[in-house]
Amino acid sequence: MSQDPLVVFTPSGKRGRFPIGTPILTAARQLGVDLDSVCGGRGICSKCQISPGVGDFPKHGVVVSQDALSEWNAVEQRYDDKRGLKAGRRLGCQATMQSDVVIDVPPESQVHKQVVRKAATARAITMNPATRLYFVEVDEPDMHVPTGDFERLERALAEQWDVGPISADLSLMSKLQNVLRKGAWRVTVALHRDHHSAQAKVVEIWPGLHEDGLFGLAIDLGSTTVAAHLTDLETGEVLASSGIMNPQIRFGEDLMSRVSYAMMNRGGDVEMTKAVREAINTLAAEIAVEAKIDPTLIVETVFVCNPVMHHLLLGMDPVELGQAPFALATSGALSLPAKDLDLNAINARAQIYLLPCIAGHVGADAAAVALSEEPGKSEDLALIVDVGTNAEILLGNTSRVLACSSPTGPAFEGAQISSGQRAAPGAIEAIRIDPETKEPRFRVIGCDLWSDETGFAEATAASGITGICGSGIIEAVAELRIAGLLDPSGLIGSAAQTGTARCIAEGRTHAYLIHDGTDDGGPRITVTQGDIRAIQLAKSALYAGARLLMDDMQVDKVDRVVLAGAFGAHISPKHALVLGMIPDAPLDKVISAGNAAGTGARIALCNTQARQEIERVVGEITKVETAIEPRFQEHFVNANAIPHATDPFPELSSIVTLPDVGFNAGPSEGEGGRKRRRRRA
Amino acid sequence: MSQDPLVVFTPSGKRGRFPIGTPILTAARQLGVDLDSVCGGRGICSKCQISPGVGDFPKHGVVVSQDALSEWNAVEQRYDDKRGLKAGRRLGCQATMQSDVVIDVPPESQVHKQVVRKAATARAITMNPATRLYFVEVDEPDMHVPTGDFERLERALAEQWDVGPISADLSLMSKLQNVLRKGAWRVTVALHRDHHSAQAKVVEIWPGLHEDGLFGLAIDLGSTTVAAHLTDLETGEVLASSGIMNPQIRFGEDLMSRVSYAMMNRGGDVEMTKAVREAINTLAAEIAVEAKIDPTLIVETVFVCNPVMHHLLLGMDPVELGQAPFALATSGALSLPAKDLDLNAINARAQIYLLPCIAGHVGADAAAVALSEEPGKSEDLALIVDVGTNAEILLGNTSRVLACSSPTGPAFEGAQISSGQRAAPGAIEAIRIDPETKEPRFRVIGCDLWSDETGFAEATAASGITGICGSGIIEAVAELRIAGLLDPSGLIGSAAQTGTARCIAEGRTHAYLIHDGTDDGGPRITVTQGDIRAIQLAKSALYAGARLLMDDMQVDKVDRVVLAGAFGAHISPKHALVLGMIPDAPLDKVISAGNAAGTGARIALCNTQARQEIERVVGEITKVETAIEPRFQEHFVNANAIPHATDPFPELSSIVTLPDVGFNAGPSEGEGGRKRRRRRA
Repeated sequence: MSQDPLVVFTPSGKRGRFPIGTPILTAARQLGVDLDSVCGGRGICSKCQISPGVGDFPKHGVVVSQDALSEWNAVEQRYDDKRGLKAGRRLGCQATMQSDVVIDVPPESQVHKQVVRKAATARAITMNPATRLYFVEVDEPDMHVPTGDFERLERALAEQWDVGPISADLSLMSKLQNVLRKGAWRVTVALHRDHHSAQAKVVEIWPGLHEDGLFGLAIDLGSTTVAAHLTDLETGEVLASSGIMNPQIRFGEDLMSRVSYAMMNRGGDVEMTKAVREAINTLAAEIAVEAKIDPTLIVETVFVCNPVMHHLLLGMDPVELGQAPFALATSGALSLPAKDLDLNAINARAQIYLLPCIAGHVGADAAAVALSEEPGKSEDLALIVDVGTNAEILLGNTSRVLACSSPTGPAFEGAQISSGQRAAPGAIEAIRIDPETKEPRFRVIGCDLWSDETGFAEATAASGITGICGSGIIEAVAELRIAGLLDPSGLIGSAAQTGTARCIAEGRTHAYLIHDGTDDGGPRITVTQGDIRAIQLAKSALYAGARLLMDDMQVDKVDRVVLAGAFGAHISPKHALVLGMIPDAPLDKVISAGNAAGTGARIALCNTQARQEIERVVGEITKVETAIEPRFQEHFVNANAIPHATDPFPELSSIVTLPDVGFNAGPSEGEGGRKRRRRRA
Repeated sequence: MSQDPLVVFTPSGKRGRFPIGTPILTAARQLGVDLDSVCGGRGICSKCQISPGVGDFPKHGVVVSQDALSEWNAVEQRYDDKRGLKAGRRLGCQATMQSDVVIDVPPESQVHKQVVRKAATARAITMNPATRLYFVEVDEPDMHVPTGDFERLERALAEQWDVGPISADLSLMSKLQNVLRKGAWRVTVALHRDHHSAQAKVVEIWPGLHEDGLFGLAIDLGSTTVAAHLTDLETGEVLASSGIMNPQIRFGEDLMSRVSYAMMNRGGDVEMTKAVREAINTLAAEIAVEAKIDPTLIVETVFVCNPVMHHLLLGMDPVELGQAPFALATSGALSLPAKDLDLNAINARAQIYLLPCIAGHVGADAAAVALSEEPGKSEDLALIVDVGTNAEILLGNTSRVLACSSPTGPAFEGAQISSGQRAAPGAIEAIRIDPETKEPRFRVIGCDLWSDETGFAEATAASGITGICGSGIIEAVAELRIAGLLDPSGLIGSAAQTGTARCIAEGRTHAYLIHDGTDDGGPRITVTQGDIRAIQLAKSALYAGARLLMDDMQVDKVDRVVLAGAFGAHISPKHALVLGMIPDAPLDKVISAGNAAGTGARIALCNTQARQEIERVVGEITKVETAIEPRFQEHFVNANAIPHATDPFPELSSIVTLPDVGFNAGPSEGEGGRKRRRRRA
């Protein structure tokens, strides 16, 4: 008796012998090869597409003949006619083994496919979503063997997919009867498996084979903006990304002012909870329209946010977070129904996942950054800074990870800045000041040209030049320092002191004029002394937090710095270093990770394994509390200046050769200071 | 070194040696003795009261000295001063072992105490409720070891009570912060453990020690009435029982007319769901007022009901239940939050448990009867009949249990009866007709006197004599037959034929006058030919169902008959046998089990073990479908007569000696029949 034919799967290299006539899908399943199927081998879902090879495969020791697989059959022809099958592709459930064969499983046929995070980074997300589709054939009811429709569905899932036991909300149970009959007992269910629960939950059911996909939202709920990424739960693809202002801003710009609002106003927390939930519903509805999908196909949402946003989203009083010991109501990861958060713009039975919080000041957003940037897997010592209204700071390597948060305030987001605005078309996002002429040139969001390039005026005519955003103000302050317009204490010089008419008197201090659009009805954009002070406070807080972690780690320098946060993505590393926002590091070791918290949310959305991973990792992160640490204050005060008397950055040498002129000899910017400057002038 | 002292616990007989100074509660826990404690040995809950013995205990081989336990201490004195401790009692957490001792654990100190079901029956309910109280001391938050309040509560429960992991609704999480701080980190939680779930759920939390108890509702949701028993979840005591009409009656009197209403009226099922949920809220609120308890202390509710009520309660379309194959949307037991059923009169986080359904026509009420009456544990063959608008019938013994349901209609509940009314004060519930004089005497609900006894008129003056209830009409029909006023086919004779003026002509047929209250403004209460026909249909359906099960069991007789249902409790076995409602059985083997479904609900409320038991048992019951079984029709037609030509009941011999006169020679009660009777008269 001759041997059964051999099948070798690529790229996995898994191989085995099976009797002639064995479907490739069956062989793949028995060998544990990652070959997708929603319909369970019924030839209707086309998820199990394979690419058979023909010829000599010396690496595998196999020669594959032309007729190694059964002939192209009617089911494949029907599918090809209806939807089109790529050349060379077969359906794994239809093609059966006739002799030795090598089968390639293309990425789109793998369940646990790797999805590229974004073009700029090499790392990938492994697809392993909590909610998946299963096509099942359910037994018809039999009055002699009476069981419920739901119990027969459960048995079908167990027998055909080896999943269960299952549970379902009443709302699903009450539509079950109709869908089962409409689909003639063939239905597709979306099954949600929560790693904390013994039961899988049926979140949706459709008659027949559901082919319109399944989607999830990864939401980064910030103090200022709420950003959502609509993600295909089968492919991992981001179909649309959208943002909306956090309407809680009307109750307070930063976190502590919202906590104060809750403390001072009875029911204030309830108002803020209602506002943010409404905004999320608006955002979800808009993003579904943008991506042209049915919003009821959004069956999962992952949230990352800081602890105050976390509590206000969940309807918990944030007041405890405003005072020592900064106790969270709950710190663990949460899995809960969307309806508990009044999220009615998506599927009524959608499931929510919130990443765990690290501490009362270090939230699920920091956990998401840790999930995305994995400091605990880094061989070199990495400092990860997620810059927002609050900065989350992580420092660590394979031996240990520390975390803290620092109250930077909203200046880095363009708030509390005289010409500040959020990052939107028309906002100045980059600026350079010529050290010789002291003249500025700049770029605005929505236009790739610099302001001194031809065509700039035409290109920005539509948006106008409306203000200056977070990254713009950081560059402006650093450039003012580089150009010698700002002394180490942060004081802007007068026109006389600096030799440029752009330094204009404004009350008792001076401002630097970047752009005057008043002739065209536009604004006059300046950097004022107040703006400098706001940025100094913010950057000192950020720097002090990082230094505090370095003290605890007993190090003086870090190997690399990762700037994260939607805004971190746009900060120029050079200017951040000049400003002293972050501890010194080689310029090429200061990189931007983009919106790392958002990426962490996407990872948790696409991969339940990652949820378990971050729940474990968060337990191992050492929390450092900035608010009560005297050294934090010390670092904060010491970090106020913008000195750079030594030169760690050769390419920035121009600044260190500048004489450290002081524009104000006195200790105060008040009346006395002004008088003294007048006398000197 | 001398031996450690011995402790012997009674009634369990458990014994062990422990070091001197071991608290009795500690010893009890280590030996697995069932000694209650809510506060965990802190001397504040007094649940661990014990009765130490002194003197010679030859049975246990122990002599107990006066000072076998440590001295009465300040904690015990404080408790005694505040609440009073019974003479001879000690607190198990305070009294420590000094030498050999015999300790009796009184029933009220046992967690798994046995609760008498009702005075009439010897069987008991073992207390093992799903929801229990735990007093815990929670760690205060520490900013250096940041965990959430909820996570610290979870750890405290695990360490102090070995329970968990826990979960909680957002509504609980959001009150947690306040309660923990109000109780100075000492709180009592009500923890619900569902045997289907890996996590215990915190349903309520109170600052400090909660001493106001915990309650549950056992609800028998019938087609006609909804009955609730408010039960103390610690003692098992029923504090109040109350009933309310099922408001769905306005959509149809019996089950099938409600199914028709749902079928014919779009949204009809939703209307009926809303109506019954509102009624349950009303009932729950009323019963809490009656028992003078805070309704938010009702943390559990168990429902038993037939499949149509089951679906309408849950918001599922019952239409499938009205046609073969009578498919249930779900048949399994259900555990769900009360808010999913809009039950807002009780605790917002209360948990609901629904017993499993046996089949499309045999519901959770039949499962509850099986739980209460345990036919599967019966050595002799038991026929259990739960009489209501639908009759649930179980037949079985240790070898096998069969079940079916039979559509008896509402006649047995006094509906569709000319003078019918539900069982309430003023309703005739029992009747006797003198075979000689043909004169009736009767009893009405609310008065123990017969109508021919002195003082009856005065005693019933308040309620009046308002109608005839289910048990009354059954007795009336049987008595009419015994008195020779009714022929075997069920026809009432004329005054001339029967020799009594109480047989009065009414249209084309005759009626028997029981009571004429018209002189006092009351009703004229008669049994009409239509009433007889309604009862004949109902009893034939009941009898045919029982016979069908007997056919399947291949038996001709049963060993005993159990009449269950609120109404079954009031049926006279003798009259039921005369009427042919049930197969013949020795009169002393026909017993009433009272409201067995309600008892089953109480058992499931008090004992989670019983829930697991009935979920297993239901899977083993063989369902027999009456609706499509030709033999059912056959039995039904054959059961129409009220013959009793042979005499299985010596004490009823009077009826069998009666000549089987026919009042109607013809096949019809129409004009022809009447004319023929006139000719004969």
